[in-house]
Amino acid sequence: MSFIQYDANCDFPIQNLPYGVFCKDGKNTIGVAIGDQILDLSVIADAGLFDGPVLKEKAKAVFGQSVLNDFMGMGKAAWSEARATITKLLSADNATLRDNADLRAKALVAQSAVTMCLPAKIGDYTDFYSSKQHAYNVGCMFRDPNNALLPNWTRLPVGYHGRASSVVVTGTDIRRPCGQTKADDADAPAFVPCRLLDFELEMAFFTGPGNNLGDPIKMADADDHIFGMVVMNDWSARDIQKWEYVPLGPFGAKNFGTSISPWIVTMDALKPFRCEAEVQDPTPLEYLQDSDHHQYNIDLQVFIKPETSEPVKVCDSNFKYMYWSMKQQLVHHTVTGCNLQPGDLLASGTISGKERENFGSMLEISWKGTKPVDMPDGTQRKFILDNDTVIMSGHCQGDGYRVGFGQCVGKILPAHK
Amino acid sequence: MSFIQYDANCDFPIQNLPYGVFCKDGKNTIGVAIGDQILDLSVIADAGLFDGPVLKEKAKAVFGQSVLNDFMGMGKAAWSEARATITKLLSADNATLRDNADLRAKALVAQSAVTMCLPAKIGDYTDFYSSKQHAYNVGCMFRDPNNALLPNWTRLPVGYHGRASSVVVTGTDIRRPCGQTKADDADAPAFVPCRLLDFELEMAFFTGPGNNLGDPIKMADADDHIFGMVVMNDWSARDIQKWEYVPLGPFGAKNFGTSISPWIVTMDALKPFRCEAEVQDPTPLEYLQDSDHHQYNIDLQVFIKPETSEPVKVCDSNFKYMYWSMKQQLVHHTVTGCNLQPGDLLASGTISGKERENFGSMLEISWKGTKPVDMPDGTQRKFILDNDTVIMSGHCQGDGYRVGFGQCVGKILPAHK
Ligand SMILES: [Ca+2]
Ligand SMILES: [Ca+2]
Ligand SMILES: [Mg+2]
Ligand SMILES: [Mg+2]
Ligand code: NI
Repeated sequence: MSFIQYDANCDFPIQNLPYGVFCKDGKNTIGVAIGDQILDLSVIADAGLFDGPVLKEKAKAVFGQSVLNDFMGMGKAAWSEARATITKLLSADNATLRDNADLRAKALVAQSAVTMCLPAKIGDYTDFYSSKQHAYNVGCMFRDPNNALLPNWTRLPVGYHGRASSVVVTGTDIRRPCGQTKADDADAPAFVPCRLLDFELEMAFFTGPGNNLGDPIKMADADDHIFGMVVMNDWSARDIQKWEYVPLGPFGAKNFGTSISPWIVTMDALKPFRCEAEVQDPTPLEYLQDSDHHQYNIDLQVFIKPETSEPVKVCDSNFKYMYWSMKQQLVHHTVTGCNLQPGDLLASGTISGKERENFGSMLEISWKGTKPVDMPDGTQRKFILDNDTVIMSGHCQGDGYRVGFGQCVGKILPAHK
Repeated sequence: MSFIQYDANCDFPIQNLPYGVFCKDGKNTIGVAIGDQILDLSVIADAGLFDGPVLKEKAKAVFGQSVLNDFMGMGKAAWSEARATITKLLSADNATLRDNADLRAKALVAQSAVTMCLPAKIGDYTDFYSSKQHAYNVGCMFRDPNNALLPNWTRLPVGYHGRASSVVVTGTDIRRPCGQTKADDADAPAFVPCRLLDFELEMAFFTGPGNNLGDPIKMADADDHIFGMVVMNDWSARDIQKWEYVPLGPFGAKNFGTSISPWIVTMDALKPFRCEAEVQDPTPLEYLQDSDHHQYNIDLQVFIKPETSEPVKVCDSNFKYMYWSMKQQLVHHTVTGCNLQPGDLLASGTISGKERENFGSMLEISWKGTKPVDMPDGTQRKFILDNDTVIMSGHCQGDGYRVGFGQCVGKILPAHK
């Protein structure tokens, strides 16, 4: 229990303690969410309260940064020590912060009073494609239900390099892209505003300590390199993607914006929500085998909010539907020798469950536009319209508390004329 | 003419003045190559010699950095002014540096005495596929000579996002990757060292000022965002690529290392070597049309040096063979709204001319391994063997001088056991 008050549905109880960067007085500052407050870690560090052996000498420098990369790079010993210190300081039975009104006034900031920023400088961003149901759905629509999965899909976590510069934090408006599309019956492409603008419900993890170029990370060490997770919307222009993506993959159809939730929920906070993962058949090659293979039970939801009506839930999914684990993604990413750096972002791919209500994109929900969704204002959605806001959220349900991610929100602005 | 001596075949005459970052006394420092020397710009800035209106107040900060990103971000006015100042200071008829032995001793460093570093912090790296002959060759080998080019190829500069973290400077050894490959007649993939390790002869440009997310760069402004060029080797694991790349493009087959030459040759230095570009048929869509469409006449060469014998030239190519221009690549990159940042790296794709001796990869030169190349030590090469060094270089031939790029060198180390 914390001396900070919150109710049982709050995303940020003392069991969570996610890291983020908030903007206060024009300065980007590292903090931890607690209830509807933020604990300013630069203040805690300046007060000398990180007094464990790993952080004692380094906390001021690390938590004085405007991004979390340095802290991410310190690794598990620092992460555990920081969590223990913050848990103690926020506990109902610890007086240090609770009974120090001056310190509380400096160290606690209302979430409603600040804006959130990107929590890290993202060196590289990678997007995987690790939900079997999603890959199957796409394969059914664009190829053949009898051969929906390509032969490599069950053998390795398929992924591609994405655009790091256009990853933005929740609340950032996204401009509908213009680009080349070609109708099947047209002779030539046209340059038009995207007509099939979609979301992709994903989660992503930030990496901790990196590896040297040429030196893969082994499965036994993979956990040490995963800092924590966010909810992600990988905005996608389906019509642009269809025309551009052969043979080298998605490019302009994906690089106009990728939204993430602001708080990084650590793997320590998520540990109680580990769950069994789908059995992998065929058995992966040895470098991808994990004697501790598991997934996480994280409820995920997507709402569409038209400009003039209430939000409508269009998707209920769960991270446990993933086929490949984060550890497998990380190991595969580095197996050829690719170097990861603290603060890289590795995303799951669209997370779809078995039923229509579990599908993680409008492409699947509307089945290529053949099954529109009814909205409360009488309109329908096959894809995302101008001025629609897409709201994603996620949480793990504990016994009397939840570990939540907050929201990943983005509004689509009309295309430039 | 400069008071620094060099011969007519030197890559770095006063007409060139390429920017790079060198390591001196453990510190990364910005400099310009001149003959076999480097002019240390931090010393020139500290001496107050950047006295033009754009740089006067900013030169110390900008040239005191360990990377060129800030200078790249200042744009054309700063680039022109810096070039004019440096040209003047190095001229035979200017006494400021020539006759000041103390300043010369501080500001001039022998290239042989330092090591070169990456010239910029590369935020994002993109690789295009813009040589028609290369795309045609690959299409012939893997698809069908009658339909070698996919329908989108002549309509837009096809490209994909690459891995920024593994771009390394010339001289960095590259470890042969291990990864999944699958023989056509095998039931399952195997985890093995890459057997078909290749180079790709490319050039790449660094970007100048960025654009905001959602605001594309127009063709009329494209030149303002291109800082300068390097020679690049996009190392490629052909067997890994073949198995992994559908449907989302190359991943582990490319992210184990990409080598670049150390000196960024500016567009000002390259201007005299503009040449006519291949006529584009069909005419591109309006946003890709350029009334000033051109290419650059840059001779490119690739040598393979086996560990115990002399280098053998395996490729003579030229940047003028490119179908899509850098301006078209840049405009297309941002047309959906993707934001570029100073110091992004955009690469050409493999540069192949019409004849076998002009092909820019071993895949093409050996035509999938069917036409090996003889080496002086009696061995043959279909692809790159362990301990081979691949040496790329490029230059523009002027009248009595050349504007050169130096070398892009990488040695392949044996795979990890
Ligand atoms: Ca995706
Ligand atoms: Ca390439
Ligand atoms: Mg995206
Ligand atoms: Mg590469
Ligand atoms: Ni990047």
